[in-house]
Amino acid sequence: MSQAGGQGTLFVISAPSGAGKTSLVSEMLRQDAQLGVSVSHTTRALREGERSGVNYHFVSRGEFEAMIARGEFLEHADVFGNYYGTSQVWVRETLARGQDVILEIDWQGAEQVRRLIPECLSIFIVPPSAQVLRERLVGRGTDAPEVVERRLSEAEEECRHAVEFDYLVVNDDFNVALADLLAIVRSRRLKMSVQQNRHSRLLAGLAGSV
Amino acid sequence: MSQAGGQGTLFVISAPSGAGKTSLVSEMLRQDAQLGVSVSHTTRALREGERSGVNYHFVSRGEFEAMIARGEFLEHADVFGNYYGTSQVWVRETLARGQDVILEIDWQGAEQVRRLIPECLSIFIVPPSAQVLRERLVGRGTDAPEVVERRLSEAEEECRHAVEFDYLVVNDDFNVALADLLAIVRSRRLKMSVQQNRHSRLLAGLAGSV
Repeated sequence: MSQAGGQGTLFVISAPSGAGKTSLVSEMLRQDAQLGVSVSHTTRALREGERSGVNYHFVSRGEFEAMIARGEFLEHADVFGNYYGTSQVWVRETLARGQDVILEIDWQGAEQVRRLIPECLSIFIVPPSAQVLRERLVGRGTDAPEVVERRLSEAEEECRHAVEFDYLVVNDDFNVALADLLAIVRSRRLKMSVQQNRHSRLLAGLAGSV
Repeated sequence: MSQAGGQGTLFVISAPSGAGKTSLVSEMLRQDAQLGVSVSHTTRALREGERSGVNYHFVSRGEFEAMIARGEFLEHADVFGNYYGTSQVWVRETLARGQDVILEIDWQGAEQVRRLIPECLSIFIVPPSAQVLRERLVGRGTDAPEVVERRLSEAEEECRHAVEFDYLVVNDDFNVALADLLAIVRSRRLKMSVQQNRHSRLLAGLAGSV
């Protein structure tokens, strides 16, 4: 449902790895046809089965750096030598059409986005306990201890920024967490600032002014 | 579920008569055990089947005016010679226990409540069109034209204050409007300011600080 005369909402979703964010977001997208997701740009190599424009927009380092120089990213990061970024043009045009957009990014990306689009709504997802997080990150025990350690300390660093977000969802039961996320999206669309545009004629009619 | 260490939320719900507010609120209360509703004080006569303390707290004009003088009401109004009011003590104590409370009041009551409890969340419910509102208020055509006229102009006056509320719910389909209201309540409980208290130990644990 497009919001006639209104702006879509940008939902920024972050989480430590192991919180279940990716599965939750893909189910949100499946259940809520009004939600779109931004396809990031990256300089990392295309993997088997991936398609440019679907999984990522695959670009060269030169192209990516030119885009940075032109201020074309809403947020971008260098992750272990590969760039990842979100096109500002695509996000702003999609929101302007009244479509809601989800961005799955880390706390640093969220901070950049809040500066450029302060009316965004940000959600942080956490696992139900530090123990569960640890178990998920340690995985099958096949990774080198230093890899596991790095993952854990990154997850902790991410969680230290949870309080900067507007909402907190605890992913203990997948379906409860999914319903929480969908309720946050639904209620945002019911905010007076959004509804006032969408239902301006109705409100005028009810107030007896038409 | 009480929010350990946290405050409950006060939900203020207003609507013109004919919007379906009372049926929606009673279904919300049935489906969400965490919601309580404030029982108002009134000076109007007890009707058949009503019980003091259940439908209203029935008090004399003298008692009511003494309560006003002592500042015991969160909001009160004189409606055609009868007083109606919401006890401030009961609401504040209930919220302090971490319980959420719904108040069904008009825009003037909502204005008084916002001044005393600015962190309340207010929702305005409207019928899907001015035509539907008119039909519902005209009813079976058995009321005197001046009674119908007064009802209509009161409903219009109420709707002129819709934009002062945080959320707008359009009651076209009862179940959609109910799901909207429940989503607003659910998402409020997921706000970081609420969750931060409730999950303070979890957040500290995840951040590696315990």
